Amino acid sequence: MTRIQYQECISALIKCMDACNYSYVSSLKEYDLADLRESIQLDRECADICSFAIQAMTRRSPFVAEILTLCADICDRCADTSSRHKHNHCQDCIDTCRNAAEACRRVSEAVEVYA
Amino acid sequence: MTRIQYQECISALIKCMDACNYSYVSSLKEYDLADLRESIQLDRECADICSFAIQAMTRRSPFVAEILTLCADICDRCADTSSRHKHNHCQDCIDTCRNAAEACRRVSEAVEVYA
Amino acid sequence: MTRIQYQECISALIKCMDACNYSYVSSLKEYDLADLRESIQLDRECADICSFAIQAMTRRSPFVAEILTLCADICDRCADTSSRHKHNHCQDCIDTCRNAAEACRRVSEAVEVYA
Amino acid sequence: MTRIQYQECISALIKCMDACNYSYVSSLKEYDLADLRESIQLDRECADICSFAIQAMTRRSPFVAEILTLCADICDRCADTSSRHKHNHCQDCIDTCRNAAEACRRVSEAVEVYA
Repeated sequence: MTRIQYQECISALIKCMDACNYSYVSSLKEYDLADLRESIQLDRECADICSFAIQAMTRRSPFVAEILTLCADICDRCADTSSRHKHNHCQDCIDTCRNAAEACRRVSEAVEVYA
Repeated sequence: MTRIQYQECISALIKCMDACNYSYVSSLKEYDLADLRESIQLDRECADICSFAIQAMTRRSPFVAEILTLCADICDRCADTSSRHKHNHCQDCIDTCRNAAEACRRVSEAVEVYA
Repeated sequence: MTRIQYQECISALIKCMDACNYSYVSSLKEYDLADLRESIQLDRECADICSFAIQAMTRRSPFVAEILTLCADICDRCADTSSRHKHNHCQDCIDTCRNAAEACRRVSEAVEVYA
Repeated sequence: MTRIQYQECISALIKCMDACNYSYVSSLKEYDLADLRESIQLDRECADICSFAIQAMTRRSPFVAEILTLCADICDRCADTSSRHKHNHCQDCIDTCRNAAEACRRVSEAVEVYA
């Protein structure tokens, strides 16, 4: 894994963290807040692991493969939960989470091959 | 998992993060700094995942089992690397890392049973 | 500041982060969720800066004084917001946040004197 | 502050975190490691506050102004320390840290005006 190869994954995770945190604060302002409880919790879980994974890549963590595998799982779970809601900010989460999960798995597999 | 059951694991991780970060800054002052390169890197990896896992437990993350499994692996790797060095701060890491790894696995297994 | 002098502040911040994150997840389950929007947001802000400040102390950050000053302000704001609500988990936040703010200011002033 | 206005600052902080963490791992491999002790420590301090500030912006933290003010100070201190070393990775830190500090101050002032 070279510095450049990480960039794509870092970009995907930034977009995902941004969309999740935006959906988190937006959900807290919604009228149907009560229906969004689980989504709010997942948004934060997803943003937190994305933030952790981004730093891990920038510091060339020897545990990048394991961290990104976990990140991918949480992104997918957040996408599943977001897909139950019609709000634009929820819908925006779905694509960014799926893209992030895919990017994580791509880097994770590449790291394991080279390790 | 109840609030009280997490406390033991949180305490073990705080001690581990503290010992690893103390060893990190102490290593940077050592005369044989060059021999400690890998240990410095692992100390930070371990402190960072401990910090993340502690927050995850306090917010009752639905991913606690997975996060603690990863944390346990990194703690063990940090203990392995620290055990190659005679400095007191490295030796202190070994026990706190092993205890942390054990505490993580105990909670992780309990969470999976109840899930 | 010695290792031992930090311990009291670290303990106060752990309790604060734990109470805030517990109040955060508990609020998301409450019937009067809509009244707790701001409190939920502040709980997370407070937990996040506490987590950051704890790590900063354990790694002997040269910026501990500034980080703890900021942490104290956020803890106080979280206590103010929590004090508007009768739930036990909100009430528990008030004391732990005030204690944390005080502990932060005590260390912060001591660090500046010795710097 | 709108979502779009934050983007420039987030981009500057990502670049800064990436350069600092790259310099951190690169420094640990250098022959003149002993001269880089302080720089290694500052690289991590800078990367850690950048990571925290990025998340704070994405979640529209009510404390963005204060967090970015602190982040700007740490970025400047990291740039100062990096400027004492000739390595490419140290030199790369200078510009990205200065840009990040400037971006932080720009957003921080704008937030305070609108608050």
